[in-house]
Amino acid sequence: MKILQCQTHVSEDKKANLDQMRGCFEEAARCGADLITFGEMFTCPYETKRFPLYAEEEGGESFTHFASLAREYGILVSAGSIPEKAAEKDGKTAVYNTAYVFDRKGQNIAKHRKMHLFDIAVRGGQAFRESETLTGGKQVTVFDTEFGRMGLCICFDLRFPGLFLEMARQGAVLVLVPAAFNPTTGPAHWELLFRARALDNQCFLIGTSPAQDPAASYHAYGHSIITDPWGTVLSQTDEKERTVLTEIDLARVQEIREQLPVLSAAKI
Amino acid sequence: MKILQCQTHVSEDKKANLDQMRGCFEEAARCGADLITFGEMFTCPYETKRFPLYAEEEGGESFTHFASLAREYGILVSAGSIPEKAAEKDGKTAVYNTAYVFDRKGQNIAKHRKMHLFDIAVRGGQAFRESETLTGGKQVTVFDTEFGRMGLCICFDLRFPGLFLEMARQGAVLVLVPAAFNPTTGPAHWELLFRARALDNQCFLIGTSPAQDPAASYHAYGHSIITDPWGTVLSQTDEKERTVLTEIDLARVQEIREQLPVLSAAKI
Repeated sequence: MKILQCQTHVSEDKKANLDQMRGCFEEAARCGADLITFGEMFTCPYETKRFPLYAEEEGGESFTHFASLAREYGILVSAGSIPEKAAEKDGKTAVYNTAYVFDRKGQNIAKHRKMHLFDIAVRGGQAFRESETLTGGKQVTVFDTEFGRMGLCICFDLRFPGLFLEMARQGAVLVLVPAAFNPTTGPAHWELLFRARALDNQCFLIGTSPAQDPAASYHAYGHSIITDPWGTVLSQTDEKERTVLTEIDLARVQEIREQLPVLSAAKI
Repeated sequence: MKILQCQTHVSEDKKANLDQMRGCFEEAARCGADLITFGEMFTCPYETKRFPLYAEEEGGESFTHFASLAREYGILVSAGSIPEKAAEKDGKTAVYNTAYVFDRKGQNIAKHRKMHLFDIAVRGGQAFRESETLTGGKQVTVFDTEFGRMGLCICFDLRFPGLFLEMARQGAVLVLVPAAFNPTTGPAHWELLFRARALDNQCFLIGTSPAQDPAASYHAYGHSIITDPWGTVLSQTDEKERTVLTEIDLARVQEIREQLPVLSAAKI
């Protein structure tokens, strides 16, 4: 299975962010990628006040753009995440940080609303409060593909081992993680968390970030990464605008689960 | 809080293994250590067939030896682990891999029977089946000390994030892990697991191993380690016979839990 991760530049112009994708799909097609992935909030600068302004309802411009590209190029797509607005039962409109996956026919086969909002205040480091404008999702997301069952979550969700245990229990052999760490938490925890979650759950993890933009208010860490069920880093890039092609062997999941049977042996 | 980790040589002579401890306590007293720790199965070569032969009932020779030393030197003791034999309800005798903790008065304040037995068969690497002669424990172990609530588990238990989440939920701010990884799993996973469990559960982890003995059938990885709630390695040694003194600041637990509130934010 070949994966092309697209660590793209995020500008203030949503249309420009969407337009640059065709080039990514062209490249994916050229190199025979089965799956193309994008980062968290890659159509919208990462600022709480922008999320409602850039938000779309399901089936909106970004959604249909991806569905079309997936169908046109016949590639499985992890469409990063975008701000999604939705009418709630109480009549209000909520905004979610939402990730979609489309199959080769352009069908939407998975949707995950970020469950754990990014509310931190590290002394002398990064502070951010997604909950100022976003609402957290409530569902664990796994879905079936031609390559087996996959999980889907977003960035800060990565910090919650219970969520990953649940995805593994539900059969995920690969978890897609559109994400955007920062210069505080990135060097400290990015690789560590991707390695540990992959090892603990004996699955592949695919973490895709936007590129770092020194002019933006939030500095994404970049470093799009893929880790395997033994906890090894298969690929990791730097913070710049990049595409990275990686081939993985999904048979490793079953191999590792037999040789080091921790998922089946857990007593708690 | 000052900790002296004792990465000792394990010989076939149980008495010699016990006798060498006095030197460790002398050193702990000299350097003002509050806690002294030992490795997994440090009174008994790590071989399944030896466990029943070296096993003692609770209150046996090793247990009383530690209780006396703890009282004599007035130091909190994580007495590694030893094979413990116990009469079961069915009339049979079971052997457990058991860790004890004694307080400064020599009182036994915690006991953990390894829950997850080490049964692995890595292709081209380490194979071992503890379950050939051992029985797994059933209890999660946390206990109170003058320094706060601590957790206690043994080696392979480290691979189970659910166990650590439960210890954290029960209030552990530090987890003691007598352990003995090997040349296959050590370089691949030892540091990764100690960092990740500390980060995920925002607590300190203290991993203490026996020294590596090239003449033994099982080659312990050594590398006794301490990690902090930010996932940082505070100290780590090599595979040789060593004592390591480390000072930790338990106030870091509350600091990190406030700045990056993941334990309280978990939805699953």
